Amino acid sequence: MNEAAELRADFDRLAEIGRHPDGGWARPAFGAADCAAHDWFLDRARGAGLSARYDAFGNAIARLEGDGRQAIVFGSHLDTVVQGGAFDGALGVMAGLEVVRRIAASGGIGRPLEVVAFRDEEGRFGPFVGSRAMMGRLPLDTLDKLRAADGSLLVDALRAAGFAPEAAGEAARDPAQIGAYLELHIEQGPVLERAGVPLGIVSAIAGQERLAIRFTGQTDHAGTTPMAMRRDAFAATARFADRFRDLILADASETLRGTIGIVNLMPNQGNVVPGEVRLGLEIRDIEAAAVERTARATEALAADVGQAFGCTVKTRSVFRDAPVVMDDRLRAVLAHCADGSGARSMVLPSGANHDAGVIGRLVPSAMLFVPSQGGRSHCPEEHTDWPHIALAADVLEAAVRRLGTAPWMT
Amino acid sequence: MNEAAELRADFDRLAEIGRHPDGGWARPAFGAADCAAHDWFLDRARGAGLSARYDAFGNAIARLEGDGRQAIVFGSHLDTVVQGGAFDGALGVMAGLEVVRRIAASGGIGRPLEVVAFRDEEGRFGPFVGSRAMMGRLPLDTLDKLRAADGSLLVDALRAAGFAPEAAGEAARDPAQIGAYLELHIEQGPVLERAGVPLGIVSAIAGQERLAIRFTGQTDHAGTTPMAMRRDAFAATARFADRFRDLILADASETLRGTIGIVNLMPNQGNVVPGEVRLGLEIRDIEAAAVERTARATEALAADVGQAFGCTVKTRSVFRDAPVVMDDRLRAVLAHCADGSGARSMVLPSGANHDAGVIGRLVPSAMLFVPSQGGRSHCPEEHTDWPHIALAADVLEAAVRRLGTAPWMT
Repeated sequence: MNEAAELRADFDRLAEIGRHPDGGWARPAFGAADCAAHDWFLDRARGAGLSARYDAFGNAIARLEGDGRQAIVFGSHLDTVVQGGAFDGALGVMAGLEVVRRIAASGGIGRPLEVVAFRDEEGRFGPFVGSRAMMGRLPLDTLDKLRAADGSLLVDALRAAGFAPEAAGEAARDPAQIGAYLELHIEQGPVLERAGVPLGIVSAIAGQERLAIRFTGQTDHAGTTPMAMRRDAFAATARFADRFRDLILADASETLRGTIGIVNLMPNQGNVVPGEVRLGLEIRDIEAAAVERTARATEALAADVGQAFGCTVKTRSVFRDAPVVMDDRLRAVLAHCADGSGARSMVLPSGANHDAGVIGRLVPSAMLFVPSQGGRSHCPEEHTDWPHIALAADVLEAAVRRLGTAPWMT
Repeated sequence: MNEAAELRADFDRLAEIGRHPDGGWARPAFGAADCAAHDWFLDRARGAGLSARYDAFGNAIARLEGDGRQAIVFGSHLDTVVQGGAFDGALGVMAGLEVVRRIAASGGIGRPLEVVAFRDEEGRFGPFVGSRAMMGRLPLDTLDKLRAADGSLLVDALRAAGFAPEAAGEAARDPAQIGAYLELHIEQGPVLERAGVPLGIVSAIAGQERLAIRFTGQTDHAGTTPMAMRRDAFAATARFADRFRDLILADASETLRGTIGIVNLMPNQGNVVPGEVRLGLEIRDIEAAAVERTARATEALAADVGQAFGCTVKTRSVFRDAPVVMDDRLRAVLAHCADGSGARSMVLPSGANHDAGVIGRLVPSAMLFVPSQGGRSHCPEEHTDWPHIALAADVLEAAVRRLGTAPWMT
C-alpha cells in the first residue's frame, strides 16, 4: 500500500486555511477562507500539470485533458460548517487530486479526468447549490432570494468572490460529457468503525421527508386542572413520539430512520399544562416507498394520538427528496478493486446527502466511505485514520484505471 | 340574596387601577399601581369606619375593633401578574371589606374583624412574601437577596414604596391573636363551572414537589446513525413522559396531578438526534404521601427509561411544599351557611397555592371558591359571574356572624 504521503501533505496544508479561533475549521461558502482554499486547490492542481479553472458559479475544476471520450470526475467540497472538521469534503477533493496526479504522472488513461471542488455543499445559501449549478439544476430566476442564516445574500457573496450572478447559468454542463462520478467521503456515522471495516461502498443516498407537526390542546394551570379535564399537548406529543419510534423499528426496511429533532412547547413553563407543541421530524431511507409509507403512517398516527388527547393536529410535509441509487457498474468496480487491495469492504447506505446525490441523478455515480472515528462529524474532533485514507486512495486509483477501458462508457 | 351592589362598585373602582395598555391588569407587587390599589383600599376602609394601617412589610390591614377575643381575619391580595385578570386576589379583599362593612353597619359581632391585603402574593420577589412576613416566616437575613425576574431587588422596592426593609420583621404578628382566617378566591380551574356548582369549600391546599430531570444521550447525525446505534435523549424523554402520565392516572389518589411543563432539547435541530433533554415536572396533591410516593416512583421511572435508551439520567428535587389542610370546624361552618343560602356547594382541593396556604400553617383557615368562567385565570378574560360573588359574600357574612359565638375560639 502506498502511504499517500503527498496526499497527507496536501491535506495538512489545506487544513491551515480557515481554522476557527475556538477550535475546528470554519470555511463558510464564498467567505475569505473558502475562497482561499479553492484558490490554493487550483494552484496545487496547476503545479501537478493539470488545467485549472473556476466555472461561472465558482466551482473549482482541475482537469487532466484526454481523448474525446467521457470524463471520469472526482468531486466533493472544501467549505465547512462553523467549527466543523478537517475531513468532511476536503478529503474527497484532496484524494481526487492525489489519484489524478498519480495517473497523470504515469501518462494518463486516455479519458479526461477531473477533480471538482463544489461550492457550498454545506448549504450556507441553499442545499447543494454548487453541484446543482453544474448540473443545470439551480433555480436561476430566484437566485437573488437565496440567503444565509445571517441574512447575507448568495448573489452578494458570489460577487464578492469575483463571480457574476447573472452568468451563474453558464456553470451548467452537459451531463453526457461525464461517464462516471466518484466521491470519497468520510462516513459521518458509526457503522464502518463498529464493523471494523475500512471501506464502505454506498448502495444509495437516502431520500427523506420532513414533517412539521403541531399539537394544539389547551393551556391550563397545572395545579387547578384535574388530569381528566386536560388537553395536554405535550402528553399527546410524548405518546406520539414513542409510537413513532415503534413505527420506525417495526418497519420491514432496515435502512429506515426516523428522528424527532425539534420539539418546542408553549408556554414551556413549570406550572402550566402545555397548550401547544410544535415538532419537526424527518424520515429517511434509501427506498422511496419506505419513506412514503412511513410519512403517511406518521400523519395518521399524529391524528389518532391527537384525538385521544383532545388535541387538534396540523401536519405539513415541509421537504421531500427522493433517494439516489448509486450506479451498479461503478459499485462493482469499486468492490472489485477493494477486494484486489486485500482489504475488507461492506455495502452501506448513505443517510446523509452529498454532492453525489445531485450529480447521481444525471450521471452514473458511486461513493466510497472511510470510517469516522466515533461516528463523529461536523465537529473539531472529526477524524479518519490515515491508513484507511491511503487504502481508499489506492482503491480509487485502481478503479479509475479499470474504468479507463470500461466498455459501457462512451 | 343581597345584590352586593356596593361590593361590585368597589370592585369596579379598584379595576380602574393598573390597567395594562394591551389588555388586562398589571399591578406588580410594590409597583406604582400596586401601591395605589393598597392606598385606595385603606381609604375605602376608613370611609367605612374601620381603622386602617400598613404593617412594616406594606401589608394593608383594615380592622373593625372589638372585644379582646381572637380576631376573624379575611385576606387575599391586590397585586396581579402582568396582563392578569381583575378577579384573582382582588375579589377576596373586596368581599372581605364588604362583609366587615355590613357587620360594622349592624353594630359588630363583638370579636375584632380584619381584612388584610397581602403584598406580593403573585411571587414577584418570592413566594408569598407578604403573608409570610405577617406570620413571621420571612427569611429576614437573606431579604436583600430576593429579586424580581427583571433584576430589581425587593429591598429597593420596599423602600420605594415607603417601607424600611430593616423593619420588615416588625410585620410579624402573634398567630394566637387570630381565631380564624377566611379567604374567598376564584377557583382558577374548571371544576365548579363544569359541575354547575356556585360554591366550593376547599378541603386542603395541595402540596407539591418539583423535579428537574436531565436525560443525556448522544448527539448524532439523524441520517447517518442507524436506529440501533442511537442514544436518543428525546426518545427516552417521550417514553418517560408517557409512563409518567400512566403513573399519575393509576395512583389511588384522585386529587393527584402531574405535569411536565418544561422540555428543552439540545441541539433542537431537525437533522440531529437529540443528545440531551432537560425537563421540569411537578407533582401536586393534598395528600403529602401521594406526592412523596409519586416523586420517588418518578425518579425510579426516569432511571429505568434512561437505562433502556442508553442515556444517563440526573434527577434533582428542586422544590417541595407540604399540603395545608383547611380547618374542619371552619369548613363545617362554611358548608352550613352555604346550605342555609339554598345554594349548592361542593368540597374540592385547591391545586393552586394561596395566602391561606401560609396563614393556614399557623392559624385555623378556610377558603371559599367561586367558579372561574372556562376555568381561566391569569389572563384578561378571567371572569366570575356576579350572582356567584353576591352569594359568596352572603355566605361569608353568615359564617362570620356564626363564628362570633363559636365556643372553640378564644
